[in-house]
Amino acid sequence: MKIGVLGAGQLGRMLALAGYPLAKDFVFYDMSGNPSAGIGETIVDPEGTRLGDFLSQVDRVTYEFEHLPVEVASELEKHKPVHPCPRALEVCQNREAEKTLFGQLGIPTPKWQVADNAATLKAAAKSLGCPVVAKSITEGYDGKGQAVLRSPEEAEQAWQSIGHPRVIVEKFVDFRREVSIIAVRGEDGDVAFYPMAENTHHEGILRYSIAPAPDLQPHIQADAEGYIKALLNELNYVGVLTLELFETKDGLMANEMAPRVHNSGHWTIEGAMTSQFENHVRAVSGHPLGNVSARGLSCMINIIGEHGDIERILELPYAHLHLYNKGERPGRKLGHVNVLADSYEELVWRVKNCAEFLPGCPDFISSLTAKG
Amino acid sequence: MKIGVLGAGQLGRMLALAGYPLAKDFVFYDMSGNPSAGIGETIVDPEGTRLGDFLSQVDRVTYEFEHLPVEVASELEKHKPVHPCPRALEVCQNREAEKTLFGQLGIPTPKWQVADNAATLKAAAKSLGCPVVAKSITEGYDGKGQAVLRSPEEAEQAWQSIGHPRVIVEKFVDFRREVSIIAVRGEDGDVAFYPMAENTHHEGILRYSIAPAPDLQPHIQADAEGYIKALLNELNYVGVLTLELFETKDGLMANEMAPRVHNSGHWTIEGAMTSQFENHVRAVSGHPLGNVSARGLSCMINIIGEHGDIERILELPYAHLHLYNKGERPGRKLGHVNVLADSYEELVWRVKNCAEFLPGCPDFISSLTAKG
Repeated sequence: MKIGVLGAGQLGRMLALAGYPLAKDFVFYDMSGNPSAGIGETIVDPEGTRLGDFLSQVDRVTYEFEHLPVEVASELEKHKPVHPCPRALEVCQNREAEKTLFGQLGIPTPKWQVADNAATLKAAAKSLGCPVVAKSITEGYDGKGQAVLRSPEEAEQAWQSIGHPRVIVEKFVDFRREVSIIAVRGEDGDVAFYPMAENTHHEGILRYSIAPAPDLQPHIQADAEGYIKALLNELNYVGVLTLELFETKDGLMANEMAPRVHNSGHWTIEGAMTSQFENHVRAVSGHPLGNVSARGLSCMINIIGEHGDIERILELPYAHLHLYNKGERPGRKLGHVNVLADSYEELVWRVKNCAEFLPGCPDFISSLTAKG
Repeated sequence: MKIGVLGAGQLGRMLALAGYPLAKDFVFYDMSGNPSAGIGETIVDPEGTRLGDFLSQVDRVTYEFEHLPVEVASELEKHKPVHPCPRALEVCQNREAEKTLFGQLGIPTPKWQVADNAATLKAAAKSLGCPVVAKSITEGYDGKGQAVLRSPEEAEQAWQSIGHPRVIVEKFVDFRREVSIIAVRGEDGDVAFYPMAENTHHEGILRYSIAPAPDLQPHIQADAEGYIKALLNELNYVGVLTLELFETKDGLMANEMAPRVHNSGHWTIEGAMTSQFENHVRAVSGHPLGNVSARGLSCMINIIGEHGDIERILELPYAHLHLYNKGERPGRKLGHVNVLADSYEELVWRVKNCAEFLPGCPDFISSLTAKG
């Protein structure tokens, strides 16, 4: 079976690495002109004229990023199975549609309003109570098109800086930490949930994910499973779905979802019985889902901008290196290191040790070390 | 770094799958006209005219099978680093040279003699005491070019059936079981040893490997490590080396070595901290070696000839499927399943369960079940 992947970055690369042992082959379709998967076949098509060529070569279609035109996915769906469904893309590309769906399914979110000019943005900031964050409805990616308002008076400046005709305004949440849940749904409707991860961001980029999230009350995992299951079933979703949440003293609040394998699930390569990548390939191919149990405790450390001292990392007996074979550039995700341990205490020690060899790796601040 | 692999079968495929996360790329050189790696780039060259092309594309050279002309490896070595060294190939291609080296290094073997006609074969059978096995000195592979003599009178017929100008005659060993040790040596001379595996063959083909080998006395592992270390250092070897042995009531006896990753080490993909494939890539690339510790208990089951009920195997929460994407053919290795467990009792149960879905999978006879 040949799987067509829309997008050709590191997520596609890792999907392929997990899919070869299931006898799958891969064709990537790249619209950026800058593919980096470096495996399988890649059709580079910035002009968008070779979609038919792509389609003729593949049995199933999936994607590794959600910022592709919904029309493209819908057109493809007329000819070959496309998983996840284009509607999932549509929802994820529009923060208003996403938050509306969360509300309809009873998934709690921070309070939000929509604004379509500086005046309504100011009114929303007043009504919600500052600080608030304003985000463009569409095309948001890694912190772009966002502004924080510390008072309603900053509305005019924020509106100009965002430069988008419609924004969503969200009240700040006093959260204990950021977490995520990754789930997978098969063609037969079967669903499996990975243990949640605790995520640490720095300058808008994910830096660390610890899984299973330390000190997590069972009812929090159960709540998250309920929320993501509602999304999966509502969308008749096939494949891996990620839901990013805030953990507050009153429970979880959903931030956003991603209709794909996710950086906060990279720990699953060695840290779970079946990786998120293999499970996505299984689901998209119509196979049964794999076991999502954790194998011990994991921390994923992103390698950002510079590679650091790779040879020293290779010497660490508890570290697994995953490079994406990309050139160095500030803020670019170049790879990740999965650190394994049997206790959180040991995990923290190992992560700190490993991070010493990664330049620009921020302090390891997790609920673990905050307590210690 | 681009690694050139001589041979393009499933071992090369798994080397590549392990090497991509270390930012390696792969070019395979296939002389058979029938490559199956299905990943990276493959130069198919049955005429042997494109070796220069291969060489110009790669930074280092390794191989995935030992039946390639030593001259080819030696020629390549003049231009690019070749690991393991051609001398390792030379030794492995000649049973007499191999057994002689074992003897020089103090590695015990079954008693053996050389014969170069039916009369000397008969004399050897008489002198060693039947039963003996006669094997062609070169080109032996998976049981071909071999004959068992139950009495010296069978010498003429055996000689005809082998059809080779020189054979090695070995006395049968009364062994408890077949085992193997896999070790890896880095460019800096650092050496690491995997826990030994217990191997079950059927019709000359490996069927099951359990690792760490159950009920193994520590001094047996230590003996095996001493033997393989002597070989690695003598050959100034870089990469993964496999030594197959018989375990007898008097200790270990070496059977043969393979200068490459080995079927009895496929369990390391999920069953060890670093797989044999990753460690070979690390060594060949000049990186530090990875941790060879086991993660729990593993059994590797080969999928031979027919695929069986793959969907049922994918349902098993403790099984990891590795398909080679090859067509079915009697006796052909099509893939393997790694079964994990925390106790040998559980492992046996799981392996038996899994084997039910693999047609032609022989009874699971190990020292474990023999005792149970």
